[in-house]
This record gives sequence, C-alpha cells and structure tokens, in this order.
Amino acid sequence: MALLNEHFLKLKGSYLFSDIAKKVKAYQVTHPGEPIIRLGIGDVTRPLPQASIEAMHRAVDEMASSATFHGYGPEQGYDFLIETIIKHDFAPRGIQLSPSEVFISDGAKSDTGNIGELLRWDNSMGITDPVYPAYIDSNVMCGRAGTLGEDGRWSNITYLPCTAANGFVPAIPDHRIDLLYLCYPNNPTGTTLTRDQLKQWVDYALANDTLIIFDAAYEAYIHDDDVPHSIYEIRGAKKVAIEIRSFSKTAGFTGVRCGYTVVPKEVTAATLDDERVPLNPLWNRRQCTKFNGTSYITQRGAEAVYSPEGRAQVKETIAYYMENARTMREGLTRAGYRVFGGINAPYLWVQAPEGMTSWKFFDELLYRAHIVSTPGVGFGPSGEGYLRLTAFGKREDCEEAIRRIGRL
Amino acid sequence: MALLNEHFLKLKGSYLFSDIAKKVKAYQVTHPGEPIIRLGIGDVTRPLPQASIEAMHRAVDEMASSATFHGYGPEQGYDFLIETIIKHDFAPRGIQLSPSEVFISDGAKSDTGNIGELLRWDNSMGITDPVYPAYIDSNVMCGRAGTLGEDGRWSNITYLPCTAANGFVPAIPDHRIDLLYLCYPNNPTGTTLTRDQLKQWVDYALANDTLIIFDAAYEAYIHDDDVPHSIYEIRGAKKVAIEIRSFSKTAGFTGVRCGYTVVPKEVTAATLDDERVPLNPLWNRRQCTKFNGTSYITQRGAEAVYSPEGRAQVKETIAYYMENARTMREGLTRAGYRVFGGINAPYLWVQAPEGMTSWKFFDELLYRAHIVSTPGVGFGPSGEGYLRLTAFGKREDCEEAIRRIGRL
Repeated sequence: MALLNEHFLKLKGSYLFSDIAKKVKAYQVTHPGEPIIRLGIGDVTRPLPQASIEAMHRAVDEMASSATFHGYGPEQGYDFLIETIIKHDFAPRGIQLSPSEVFISDGAKSDTGNIGELLRWDNSMGITDPVYPAYIDSNVMCGRAGTLGEDGRWSNITYLPCTAANGFVPAIPDHRIDLLYLCYPNNPTGTTLTRDQLKQWVDYALANDTLIIFDAAYEAYIHDDDVPHSIYEIRGAKKVAIEIRSFSKTAGFTGVRCGYTVVPKEVTAATLDDERVPLNPLWNRRQCTKFNGTSYITQRGAEAVYSPEGRAQVKETIAYYMENARTMREGLTRAGYRVFGGINAPYLWVQAPEGMTSWKFFDELLYRAHIVSTPGVGFGPSGEGYLRLTAFGKREDCEEAIRRIGRL
Repeated sequence: MALLNEHFLKLKGSYLFSDIAKKVKAYQVTHPGEPIIRLGIGDVTRPLPQASIEAMHRAVDEMASSATFHGYGPEQGYDFLIETIIKHDFAPRGIQLSPSEVFISDGAKSDTGNIGELLRWDNSMGITDPVYPAYIDSNVMCGRAGTLGEDGRWSNITYLPCTAANGFVPAIPDHRIDLLYLCYPNNPTGTTLTRDQLKQWVDYALANDTLIIFDAAYEAYIHDDDVPHSIYEIRGAKKVAIEIRSFSKTAGFTGVRCGYTVVPKEVTAATLDDERVPLNPLWNRRQCTKFNGTSYITQRGAEAVYSPEGRAQVKETIAYYMENARTMREGLTRAGYRVFGGINAPYLWVQAPEGMTSWKFFDELLYRAHIVSTPGVGFGPSGEGYLRLTAFGKREDCEEAIRRIGRL
C-alpha cells in the first residue's frame, strides 16, 4: 500500500496568495465595476528587455532548422550564459567563480525548494521573520520544520524577528542553527543589510558551521554602496553560503523562467561521522537526475540581459519601478503612514495604524481604496501589523493608489 | 552543523551517460579524424514543428509590450494548453479528465524525479529491469531504494526482469509493491505492452493498493492498435496511476522543456492510520511551493503542436524517425543480430553476440564501427548482453551505421 508523506498534511490549507485571490474575487463579485489596483503579488508588469526579445527570436529560429537545432542542453546550463554571469555579476566585485560553481535553473523558486534535498531532514533551521513562505513550506514537506505550534511557529525553526523595533536587522541568535535562509534585499520588508551587518552573519555561520541559503533575487535593485550585492563579497562566505539569483525581477522573466544558483566548491556539509562533504557535486548530481536543463531559448534571452543594450534596458526598467517606489513611499509618508523599504528593493513595508491587524488593514485598503496588498502576517508572526506593497505596478496605478490612500 | 543527506553518498560515482561521454572522448583523442555516429543518447535531431516555431515567435513578441506581457503564469500551467491536451490526447480515447488533473511542467524528468516527494521514504518500490536510471537514482536520494547490494541491485527495489526470455513482458510479482514505475513504450528496450498485458498490471495495482507511475513519454510512436497510448485506457487505472508525458520526443522539445503529469482526483495514498488521501491536491501544493510554472513561450509552442499544421508536422517527424528505426532494424537483422523494439518506439534493443557483455559490445561498435551506442547493462542487471540504439539520428547516419555494422 503506497504510504503518504504525511508531512504534507501539516501544511496549512492554502497558500497565502490563494487566500488573497479568493478575498479579491469575493470583493469583485460584490462590488462589480470598482476598478481594483493590484499591488499584492510581486509580479512585474514591464515588458522584457528588447535585447532579450531579439535574442529569443534568433534562438527560436535556430530551433527551426536541423543544422542549428538544439536538443538536450547541459543540465547545469550553457557555458555561454554561465560565463556571462560570472563576468558581469561576480568578477567586477572581486568574486572569482569557476563555471562549474554556477547552475542555471528555471527559477529561484525551484532551487530554493530543491536545495534542501542535499541535507538531512532533521537539521535545525532559521529564518528571518517575516519571510517568503516557500522557505518554510518546502521544509515542512520534508519534515524539517517540525510541527506547527499554536503560536503559528514551527517547532524546529528559529524565528529571527525583523521589525521596526530592531530596524529590521535580525539579531544573531545565542544558539547554533544548521541551516539559515537569508533574503537580501529582503522580501517582504524591502529592507537590506549593510556589508557589516551581513558580515556578522557570515562570521556566525563560520563559527557555528551553519549553511546559509542566500536569496539575492532582488540584487539588481540595490542603490546604496554599502549594501552587498552578493554574499560572496564577505570574506569566508564561500565556505558557508549558497547564493540563489533570478532573472525574474531583474529582467522581467517571471513568465520566462530563469534563475541560477551558486554552489561554491568550498561549501560543505557533514556526515554523522563528521566527515566534510562538498555540496557542489551533490547539487550537480541532483540536477542531473531530476532536472533536464533550462530552455535554450530562455538561456539566450538571459544572456542578452548582459549585453550593452540589455543592461541599459534593464537599468531603465528598474529605474521605472524604483520611481514607483519613491512615489508610493513619499505619498504614504505624507498620508501619515510609517513606511520601510523601497530604497534598495521594490517592496514597501507599511505599518498599520496603531492597533490594526494586517488583515484588517488589508480589508481597509481593499474595501475603501480598492487596492490589493499583501497582509504582513501572511509572511510570519512578526509581519503582524504590516502590509507589503509592491512597486511593480504601472506608474499611473501607483499614483492613483496613493491618491486613494490619501483620501482615506 | 549542517548535516548531509547521506543517501546521496550511496549513488554510484557518475551517471551512465557521463561514463559513455568519457569513453567516446578518449576514443576521439586516440582516433582523431574517424567520423563518429552517435546513436547513444536519446536526443532528437529534427527541428521543431514549424507551427511551434511560429507560435513561439508570436509569444516572444507578446513579451515585448506591456499590453500583452505575461508575468507569472499558473504553477499548474495555462488553461489553453491543459484544455488542448485533454481534448487531443485523452478525450478521443474515451478518457475524461478535468483541467485540474493535468499539471504542465518543464519536462518529464523533473516530474518523475519530484513525484516521489508525496510518498513516505520507506515505501517498497518496483521497476522493470532494464530501466531509465533516473527512476532509481531519484529514489536512492531520498533513501527509498535502500542499500546497493554486490549484485548491483538495491535492497528495497523489486526488479522485474524484461528480457528476450519473457518477451520483454515483466511477470506480475508474487508480493505487494507500494510504488511501481512503468514506462511504455519502453525506454530502453523499445518494447510495449498490449492492452491485455497492461490491464494485468492495473489489476495487480488495484488488488495490492500499488501506486503506478506510468511514463508515457514515447506514446506518439505507437503504431499498433492494441498498444494503449495512456494507462487510463484501462478501467480502474485512474484509482492507481499517475501518468507522465513529454513533448520532448513527440515534438522535439528536448531543448525547449515541456511535459505534463496527470494526477487523477481518484488516486490516493494511505496514512499510517489507513486514511486515504488524494494525491492531486498534494501534487498541486508541491508544485505551487517548489515550482513557478513553465515558460509562457514554451507553453504556446506546445499548444501549437496540436494545431492541424502542428499535428501534420509531428506526424512527418515521427515517420522520419520510425523509418530510421525500420532501416536499422532490418539492417541489423540482415547482419545476423537479434533486434527488439523499434516498431512502436524509437529505440532498438540489440542482443550482443553470444557471450559478449554490453560494454564489450559497446567497445566493439565504438572501436570497429565508430558508432556510439548505450550498453544495456547501464540500464540495469537484466540489460546485460544488450545494447540500445536510438532512431533519432539523421537518416544518412543511420544508413551509414548499418553499412558499417554489416562490414564487421
């Protein structure tokens, strides 16, 4: 009799964004004709860079003739893309990587979910709180998260609160964590760590033999000089960190699907006999067994993001979103709200009026201003009392949203 | 201290196809100038259907304007593709599926590898032998395969031999298996099960509460009427089977990456308390948490495979490969070899001359005829004494390969 992986049954009924979608649908049915502005899900709205469009057209044409056809590519990704990534994303910051340390994927969500397969199910783990829900859910599925307590916290997870009270800088814990997820620039709070602050975490990981999964999906939005773009800018990080990146928010690839993961040769995990095992060949084996590479067409589109034209176009798109962020940030502040993020990240983290819960604040915005946001508590207990707004909308929608909020 | 998933260390040093690649490279270095014909890896060589090319160009253009841009799609795939699949692949065979039972993915390899996450690690499993190696390796990684014995067999796997002696029809086992992988038309042997033969397996699964993972990646190559295209053609299969399909071999999508998995609402697994839990919502949850959907451009390309033009173009490509198969099959038979498969599948399973091992036969073909094949034993113990040749090559290569083999 096929027995179930019962850890799946511990998951809460549905995913945050499905809950929101249902609420919005219910609102629309009862309020037809009210124009809704969606600043909830972190999806982009600007088109792909023209350089990627042209590169993908060329790649599609290559697939039309047997002389230029591409079948199975390397599971790890094509060298043309890997080498371009190393040259542009790492070498200029003094980070030396070999091509076999970079793995192209169909997106950061897949890699973030799958990377845990390399580790025992009973490692302890830590997350910043609030946090991108998939980090937790993927660990619930394999049993690593433990059991859900009545306080909404999982028994095997250390929650590192990030709130206005600590300036959204998680405090170094007083105990050892085996596996730590960090996402900077942060989703959902839009805040960042400075080089010095991130260095404390790398030092903690080196001292405690912690593996850091560093999600740098929003790296392209960094504006301030003292915010590191890669964790490998910190000395020693190659020993303790895996970095995951994405073209989704950089170049509008949310519907095209491409990301990459860096697994340095130096990063290891331990056997029960305390033998050190490098994770790079294990991740390679995982990908070769359960993944068949990213679309050739997609990889050509991603490569073009780094061309001079592509870079200029990406810069323009990011400037557009960050101008949205500025507009929203200033408008919300004027309207009396306390707002965080939105300077080195496309997310604004808005504090609810005194005493109001996240969901109540969400309902207020939906019913009174017809704006879809994301309730902060959906990202974890420390998100209670906050809302996330994204800067990925159309300019006129962001401006209209601020006008409506101002009128509340 | 991050502890390793030590099951990974049980995996053999490298993947079959890497071993072959190394041997071929060594041969090329020592024999420069000898033109090699590659009939080893099952990768296609014909271009994509023109209908898919055109559809992908249109989709790329949509991504170039914010008015028609597509960001995150449904993790399950777009309805336009799901509904097209149901209409063409299932409805005409009397199989009723609802859209929520079909999940679009980036390929069959991902789904085959990931589906096991829904089940406890200690279910017993069965495979036909020889078999596609990823079925085993993905189960080794989570501990389900058990330990590797000196006979090359894993302790928790029931091997169902498929050899000339039983006409490549696996015998129904005398004991219960929790999880069974079947691939028909078969990779690597190129053989099939008739409707009656497959019915025996469905009946076995119904009687023993076995979950069947049915890999139908080569369905498009079926020519004979009594060979089922889908396991759901067999009554009761919806209760016990998950079917995985791919556009790779049908429409040349090996480098484009698209497949789909059918998880019927009726299929369940049991908890330790013997409660039945439907797998469909669990797979949905898995995909929503660890996957972000297949490229919009790719899905438009896949949809076009079902257009009248697309279907005609696919038919032509398959006819091309199957004419290769016929040429090779007849030529090998004339040369005195015993050949199986190649009628309803693009693979030929060639028996080595009496007493010769797979690897010896592989070396013979490589060194004396400059042909790359795949040694049967690489697919499992019962593959010893066989070779796999694929019909995916260019016509002139297949003909030349047969001439060379004839001269041996």
